[in-house]
Amino acid sequence: MTPMISVELLWKDYCSFEMNVNPTLGKTMIESRSRDFSNAKRLTKEFESLTRPIDRNNPCLPPNVPLTSEEIKQLSAWRKFITWERSNPLKTEDKLLLTRRIQLAYEQSLLCFGYHVDLWFEICSYLEQTSRFYAEHGDIHMSKRFLDDTAHFYERAIQTFMRSNMLIHFAYADFEEARLNIDKARAIYNHLLDRKEAVHLTDPTLAYIQAMQFERRVDGIKSARAVFKRAREDSRINYQVYVAAALMEYYCTKDQKIACNIFNLGLKKYPQHVDYILAYVDYMTHLNEDQNARVLFDGLLAQEQGISNESQVPIWTEFLKFESQLGDLASIKNVEQRRANLFAKFNQLDGRQTALLVDRYRFLDLCPCSTDDLKLLGLQTQSDPIIESSSSSTIKDRRDSLPKPDIKHMMPYRPTRNPLPGSHPTPGGVFPLPDTALYLVKVLPPTRNFEVESLIDLPKTNEFLAFPRDLL
Amino acid sequence: MTPMISVELLWKDYCSFEMNVNPTLGKTMIESRSRDFSNAKRLTKEFESLTRPIDRNNPCLPPNVPLTSEEIKQLSAWRKFITWERSNPLKTEDKLLLTRRIQLAYEQSLLCFGYHVDLWFEICSYLEQTSRFYAEHGDIHMSKRFLDDTAHFYERAIQTFMRSNMLIHFAYADFEEARLNIDKARAIYNHLLDRKEAVHLTDPTLAYIQAMQFERRVDGIKSARAVFKRAREDSRINYQVYVAAALMEYYCTKDQKIACNIFNLGLKKYPQHVDYILAYVDYMTHLNEDQNARVLFDGLLAQEQGISNESQVPIWTEFLKFESQLGDLASIKNVEQRRANLFAKFNQLDGRQTALLVDRYRFLDLCPCSTDDLKLLGLQTQSDPIIESSSSSTIKDRRDSLPKPDIKHMMPYRPTRNPLPGSHPTPGGVFPLPDTALYLVKVLPPTRNFEVESLIDLPKTNEFLAFPRDLL
Repeated sequence: MTPMISVELLWKDYCSFEMNVNPTLGKTMIESRSRDFSNAKRLTKEFESLTRPIDRNNPCLPPNVPLTSEEIKQLSAWRKFITWERSNPLKTEDKLLLTRRIQLAYEQSLLCFGYHVDLWFEICSYLEQTSRFYAEHGDIHMSKRFLDDTAHFYERAIQTFMRSNMLIHFAYADFEEARLNIDKARAIYNHLLDRKEAVHLTDPTLAYIQAMQFERRVDGIKSARAVFKRAREDSRINYQVYVAAALMEYYCTKDQKIACNIFNLGLKKYPQHVDYILAYVDYMTHLNEDQNARVLFDGLLAQEQGISNESQVPIWTEFLKFESQLGDLASIKNVEQRRANLFAKFNQLDGRQTALLVDRYRFLDLCPCSTDDLKLLGLQTQSDPIIESSSSSTIKDRRDSLPKPDIKHMMPYRPTRNPLPGSHPTPGGVFPLPDTALYLVKVLPPTRNFEVESLIDLPKTNEFLAFPRDLL
Repeated sequence: MTPMISVELLWKDYCSFEMNVNPTLGKTMIESRSRDFSNAKRLTKEFESLTRPIDRNNPCLPPNVPLTSEEIKQLSAWRKFITWERSNPLKTEDKLLLTRRIQLAYEQSLLCFGYHVDLWFEICSYLEQTSRFYAEHGDIHMSKRFLDDTAHFYERAIQTFMRSNMLIHFAYADFEEARLNIDKARAIYNHLLDRKEAVHLTDPTLAYIQAMQFERRVDGIKSARAVFKRAREDSRINYQVYVAAALMEYYCTKDQKIACNIFNLGLKKYPQHVDYILAYVDYMTHLNEDQNARVLFDGLLAQEQGISNESQVPIWTEFLKFESQLGDLASIKNVEQRRANLFAKFNQLDGRQTALLVDRYRFLDLCPCSTDDLKLLGLQTQSDPIIESSSSSTIKDRRDSLPKPDIKHMMPYRPTRNPLPGSHPTPGGVFPLPDTALYLVKVLPPTRNFEVESLIDLPKTNEFLAFPRDLL
């Protein structure tokens, strides 16, 4: 029996029907089914209590970030309902029925929350699991059917609300790759990267990188290189493509020369991008070719490269680390001195020599001073002195985001036994007038000016007014 | 003329002396020197205003961390004075005089602030610079003299206040190494590492690492290996020594096999130390030998290693990154699945599948979702989901450290026109009794029980007491 709303009414009708047809047979029929009914009744109650907080009329809008409390309430209500359905409350052994119910629950939730990528991904991976379940039990037909259902869901996602969400595109492509639909997977990547399509990625760098990895897996390094070539011609990409391409060459073809060439190619395009340079330096120092690494460092830190002084700091720190590990004392001291000169350039050297020296002797998380000493040297954390400023700004940001009471309109309470007339009396005391009102009260002439005695004097005061005599 | 306190008195005496001896000659003598005098007078004023805030009677104590405001005031007064002396206020061309004056300023400041490593290091490097200055000008004798002065200062530092400060030891050893006093430098490292000396390092790991680097520089890899052997026999060392030794073998002898052997040796000693394992993994993945790296990962993540579930997370993340870069889809999915199983073990999987998927497609700082999407998925930052929990705990810690008013003894104020007798009256209202007193007042019998009428009934109530009759 399926739990549904007003199941009790149905049961009553059924009972009276059975009793009308054949009272003796009906009784046993009813009895044999009464257990099913009580089960369905219990589940209906659970179902009702789970669906009651859900507002199915909510329009499907892009979510606010962070979510409003109403959205959080609705989302968690849907989540509870889905979790209940996934727990197989009917205790059915019929996998198809269970899957259909769960699918329906997700379908309904997506009507209100279609912009939530996790719901899409969950139903897709659930359907894929179901397909695998049937494949394991030898039911090729059902397995195929659920695979198609999964693809259908993915397709719906990327055609509608998830149009510019890379995550679901990647998951879809992986799914198609896994069932060896290579052309379909490639089409998904192309769809994501095509500027004429409605996808509109502002930064397609990661999509190119994933497409490269995909081509490497299914078709080898040559096709991956073609994607990299296409990426280089796209004006929207960022430096990470070069890093990914170089590392791919290094890891897959084991050819250090090609990797270096790619890094150098990127360096021409991003000569002042610190993150790119650090990635290059990291690659180079791990390669264990110290002469090449030194040449790279010297080239990067030459004047004509035009890397700003602030950006040079992390590169110098890497250089110092590199030399400490394999240089002789003279070259270490040389790098140290040039680094100090850099700090002198932006007037940060005074009293910092010792702090800079600390960097020289660091290893991993070890530090040549105690934490107390570091604080005395003006280094707050174990990390580089330069980072210090950014971390303190995040603390400040967090403080700004804390809620604060609006105290502008607060009035101080003053306990008074006998409140004066005209004040704001309240049991036990008074509230003084607000500032503006208080000012008005102060500049007003005293009340006795308006009493009869002062009014009689009015003609006299008239004399003080400088009316021209002839006008009177 | 040297600026000094009461220079004016001296000048006056000198003037009257000259005038008494020979008024005509004296006048020209005085005139020719009056410019010097006015200069000295001005400098004396500057000197006085700089030294006035300094309290030379301050005892030399280990500094408070953070410094008290009094200490900060004193230290900045000293710093100002030293900076003034270093700016060569006398405008003298006599390098020796200038150096002596600066040395004296540091000497004096060290009497009060001997526990501040930066003062020690600054005077030492200043004297070394002076020695270099004389060497460049061909004065070998003076150059030698200042080198000795520098060594003398370093020696004083490590014998007295800087006894257990590694930084100044390293700087001293570097200094001796630079002037080719190899044996002296080695003695400094040995002194730092010797358990019988008064140095008392709690964690000599970094000292061993620096000693290894020193031996590598001056004597080659064999001596460095001897230091590493000595380090392994010291029970106080930590895992970083193994990392340093392995990397040194890799970078200097270019022998991957020895480096791997050292890493494996360390793994036996620190089988569950995540930082060590991550360093090993980082080394291995950069080596570009994917089969070895896979074997390492599988070995590390096997059940019998006994690495706790929480600690396994970063290793799995590295593994996933590694496989994404060079594995095929099946092995990527495999790692992903095993990682999800790990999360399932500590019940963090529910509703997190999508969040875990995000990790799969990351590259450097690129993320497959917008920041808004990440927030909706419950990932606050671009970093790993696991870090989130630790960062929230730091927020909690910070909140704990904020000062809070102690509201335990607060009493609510109740405005009352006519306070009852016995309450705590205050203008305009009352404060109720504290809780314990209120309880006492409540359990006490009403006051009329103690009035005369009720006292007369006492004999009657006595009858209720179950005294044995025969005792009465």
